[in-house]
Amino acid sequence: MRTWIEHRDATLALVAPLPVVEVGLADALGAVLAQDVVTDTPMPRWDNSAMDGYAVRHADIASATAATPVVLPVVADLPAGTAERPFLAPGNAARIMTGAPVPDGADTIVPVELTDAGTVRVRIDDAPPAGRHVRHAGGDAAAGDLVVAAGTLLGPAQVAAVASVGRSRVPVHRRPRVAVVSTGDELVAPGEPVRYGTLPDSNSWLLAAAVQEAGGEALRLGPTSDDPQALLALLHGLDDGALHGPVDLVVTSGGVSVGAFDVVKAALRDEPDVEFVPVAVQPGKPQGLGRLRGGTPLCALPGNPVSSFVSFELFVRPAVLRLRGLADVHRPTVTAVVEDGWRTPPGRAQVMPVRFGTGEQPRVRRATPGGSGSHLVARLALADGLALVPAEVDEVEPGDRLTVMRLRA
Amino acid sequence: MRTWIEHRDATLALVAPLPVVEVGLADALGAVLAQDVVTDTPMPRWDNSAMDGYAVRHADIASATAATPVVLPVVADLPAGTAERPFLAPGNAARIMTGAPVPDGADTIVPVELTDAGTVRVRIDDAPPAGRHVRHAGGDAAAGDLVVAAGTLLGPAQVAAVASVGRSRVPVHRRPRVAVVSTGDELVAPGEPVRYGTLPDSNSWLLAAAVQEAGGEALRLGPTSDDPQALLALLHGLDDGALHGPVDLVVTSGGVSVGAFDVVKAALRDEPDVEFVPVAVQPGKPQGLGRLRGGTPLCALPGNPVSSFVSFELFVRPAVLRLRGLADVHRPTVTAVVEDGWRTPPGRAQVMPVRFGTGEQPRVRRATPGGSGSHLVARLALADGLALVPAEVDEVEPGDRLTVMRLRA
Repeated sequence: MRTWIEHRDATLALVAPLPVVEVGLADALGAVLAQDVVTDTPMPRWDNSAMDGYAVRHADIASATAATPVVLPVVADLPAGTAERPFLAPGNAARIMTGAPVPDGADTIVPVELTDAGTVRVRIDDAPPAGRHVRHAGGDAAAGDLVVAAGTLLGPAQVAAVASVGRSRVPVHRRPRVAVVSTGDELVAPGEPVRYGTLPDSNSWLLAAAVQEAGGEALRLGPTSDDPQALLALLHGLDDGALHGPVDLVVTSGGVSVGAFDVVKAALRDEPDVEFVPVAVQPGKPQGLGRLRGGTPLCALPGNPVSSFVSFELFVRPAVLRLRGLADVHRPTVTAVVEDGWRTPPGRAQVMPVRFGTGEQPRVRRATPGGSGSHLVARLALADGLALVPAEVDEVEPGDRLTVMRLRA
Repeated sequence: MRTWIEHRDATLALVAPLPVVEVGLADALGAVLAQDVVTDTPMPRWDNSAMDGYAVRHADIASATAATPVVLPVVADLPAGTAERPFLAPGNAARIMTGAPVPDGADTIVPVELTDAGTVRVRIDDAPPAGRHVRHAGGDAAAGDLVVAAGTLLGPAQVAAVASVGRSRVPVHRRPRVAVVSTGDELVAPGEPVRYGTLPDSNSWLLAAAVQEAGGEALRLGPTSDDPQALLALLHGLDDGALHGPVDLVVTSGGVSVGAFDVVKAALRDEPDVEFVPVAVQPGKPQGLGRLRGGTPLCALPGNPVSSFVSFELFVRPAVLRLRGLADVHRPTVTAVVEDGWRTPPGRAQVMPVRFGTGEQPRVRRATPGGSGSHLVARLALADGLALVPAEVDEVEPGDRLTVMRLRA
């Protein structure tokens, strides 16, 4: 049996960052930058004022005190955005607002709080040090400096950084479009009548939302019937784009185990590049993985909701992040102390949904009292971590330390 | 001067969770549940099989071993989703797939791995304990049990939990629509020509993206000119919905300081329920806050990009989260050890953008070498935390411990 790390790496080997597209800034949030953004100009472009006040030559005001103020004529009025570029001769002052370019000749800004705020003449009651309150051209960045590096996730500050260098469009990796298909004759759409033997489909909703949360666009399909030929036609229609347009990844849930009617396994029995393999992890042992004949990667996950959830986190989410162009595709982990304890399966790693306690030191307990065997997806709602129990551990005891994937900030 | 905590609480006092709307599951991700979701039925609804195998009466197979197998006739074949409800008489077995209802009379599932997988007769080579591999009706939840509580943020697992109880629609708080307006004659739209004295607008992009990341819908406007009457007309048009439809919050940047042309301050001079107040925090001292005459809450932030960013995090983001209906509107914090050190302003709290180091113990250093005074929004891109320095601290030294707001997972 392969380890879950091996299976994750096999999944990642099927995907690569998607092609580059140019998008406007309004569509850039959450995308991954595909090329370095550099500034063509110094930042700031011109010496400008860091305060509302008066631009002066320091030599003219160096002696100013409250007892011996200096009075200068105000020869210009420079609001932010002014196109005026006056020369400040000795003995003069220019009123200036934050962000306005410092006039040639001036070297210091006197904040308005140190003056009488005059508009014809200004009385200066104190002298800041020479050069104070001037933001110098190029002080933040020189022309050609890197502003946002390729591979960076564009959050609010990064989008703003791109805007700040005057770019309205930005090259990013195309956002992945991921089809999710839940399978099983026992499933009915939520809101539809539930007759004996059936239950509402939750996996297609779980996986579609998880794809969206991972930064992909989800095409949610299903629940589909347990007819292998119909499912194969659907998967091939997704693969060639004929049914719902092109998709970058197909994820199915259910029908991958040892049962007589396991529909995904049956449908893909003759697909040359898809294999069904046992993975040494609990939950999530039965997995299908490969490419459909047109080349679209496919992850076939088990159908138990907890297994689907864990399998998505371990295998699919990293693949979605790599398609987006991210270099680091893994959830952050932390070492946490276990508060409760539980038995684990021999010879297989275990992934236990856990909940972090409050307090500074990371502590966890099981989110699902029934453990990973619980079938109630509602209990998953309480999990904010996945504890990773190594295969060689047979029992987790209170006080043990485990590596835990953080699912939330 | 009020503290930033007081100003944050004054901001929060202006907002309340938005009205409840019903949305389909496809629109539920990221919304906040407005009413408890309970299950109307036991979960699972029926005793069902946890394995692919054979439903039997344990008394019939208790003696089975590899040396002395038990052979039973297979009288039914029960795939998942079957509507059949046979009665299993003593001495018989029913082939059953994972998830299919356990027939009346049967009490135990024999996994297929312990049998010869027969379809007419089955040879059973080992006996699981009585009752094994049956998921009992109500084992996860009883009818009436709470599945997702009001106030819960609907992530993938929560959306799936709602689906699992058969609900296709869900009552959530309406998503807030937030207008952001950057002001300043010195600003030009990114991509437009930059003449002497101007620079590209980044704040409207910063704030719009931050609103989206906080779960709101952003209406991005600006940059606007420094004409107070034009700005007032815009703000009133946002307030009454005439210009761009209703909005739940208005956020402006720039024009709130002591300058002669501070446009937001000038525009709102006669607005009765908006006040401009100094807040004892650096950056972010000048702040405007209140309600426009139609009742729409307004936050007027300073225009320096780092000040805008910090002000959004301290004041606006909690308000957006409260509008969404979240009870906990604050970023998680952690105590971190400072690696570098810096001077802080006397008598004012300081909020320093910082970057966490790698390693288990939280350690931080300044993200912007120029500190919070840096004007390069690009440097903010490196910050994944905001260190909160109390007002009484004058200097932060290496090794000091500070409370740090985490900006990312």
